[in-house]
Amino acid sequence: MVILGIDPGFAIVGFGVIRSENGRQALLQCGAVTTPAGLPLPTRLRQIADDMETLMLQFKPDAMAVEELFFNNNVTTGIGVAQARGVILVAAERFGVPIYEYSPSEVKLAVVGYGKAEKRQVMDMTKRLLSLKAVPKPDDAADAVAIALCHARTYTSRLPGLEAARPGSGRYKVRQD
Amino acid sequence: MVILGIDPGFAIVGFGVIRSENGRQALLQCGAVTTPAGLPLPTRLRQIADDMETLMLQFKPDAMAVEELFFNNNVTTGIGVAQARGVILVAAERFGVPIYEYSPSEVKLAVVGYGKAEKRQVMDMTKRLLSLKAVPKPDDAADAVAIALCHARTYTSRLPGLEAARPGSGRYKVRQD
Repeated sequence: MVILGIDPGFAIVGFGVIRSENGRQALLQCGAVTTPAGLPLPTRLRQIADDMETLMLQFKPDAMAVEELFFNNNVTTGIGVAQARGVILVAAERFGVPIYEYSPSEVKLAVVGYGKAEKRQVMDMTKRLLSLKAVPKPDDAADAVAIALCHARTYTSRLPGLEAARPGSGRYKVRQD
Repeated sequence: MVILGIDPGFAIVGFGVIRSENGRQALLQCGAVTTPAGLPLPTRLRQIADDMETLMLQFKPDAMAVEELFFNNNVTTGIGVAQARGVILVAAERFGVPIYEYSPSEVKLAVVGYGKAEKRQVMDMTKRLLSLKAVPKPDDAADAVAIALCHARTYTSRLPGLEAARPGSGRYKVRQD
């Protein structure tokens, strides 16, 4: 299966496309969609929507994995990221691509084997698991590849009967409100 | 001109469509787009995108006015609202509809004449200015109509030379980051 990993943002959206077969993963492409700071936010969001649709058309992913959104210090940046994330989710939804979300610790656990791993360890394991010569650049692309890897390794490890033991990971959670 | 006012949300999106001519405004339609709580967020966001595009096609607005997003107590709800807002902005952008954003106090100032007016006063003035028999229901629709009214009254009051005196209102601000 082809997995599109996304590190959401509005100034820069990291993406990583991997192929996962028989428990092994290979990198198809990774990079970043960047939007110019001088443009109004709606124009930037539209560019993200357009570029996401191009990625869907080009790679026809079987799944999109995206990081869960948490707000830390900068709420203003967080609002922008959340707006971009909504646009990204709709792009996948419109192409019928199933969406999965993972927390940062789920990504660390799946890639490094330890939920509190350092960012550096995630990068190194990403490089190793995909037999890359170097860690992908920019950081946003590397993060996106790690998220795609997380999905590949979480999803394929779901043997029958094990699914119930992994309530935190996988298919986009339904929110009640 | 036809103005589409939007009160963003992901469970409920209020909308109000007004016609503004020669300093007078009339309500064309208002209501709310609601998405079922039992559906995954991406599905709900897609429904919002679809319904926004239907509104654009049906009313061909000359402008969309939307409330600025602030986060107050509930950051989790705020993330959902921001994701929906991004989707709404892209819908307008794709239809070439200019987007304007206003803060709650700008709406109060434009509709009631006092930036710290109570919500009740905004509702009453909205009803009066549009010669309605009752305040629009639900509240989200009434809020959206007030935002559209705010744009109509702010925009038409912009005589040459006055524009510089209103830096806070009007066309979507460019964010630098």
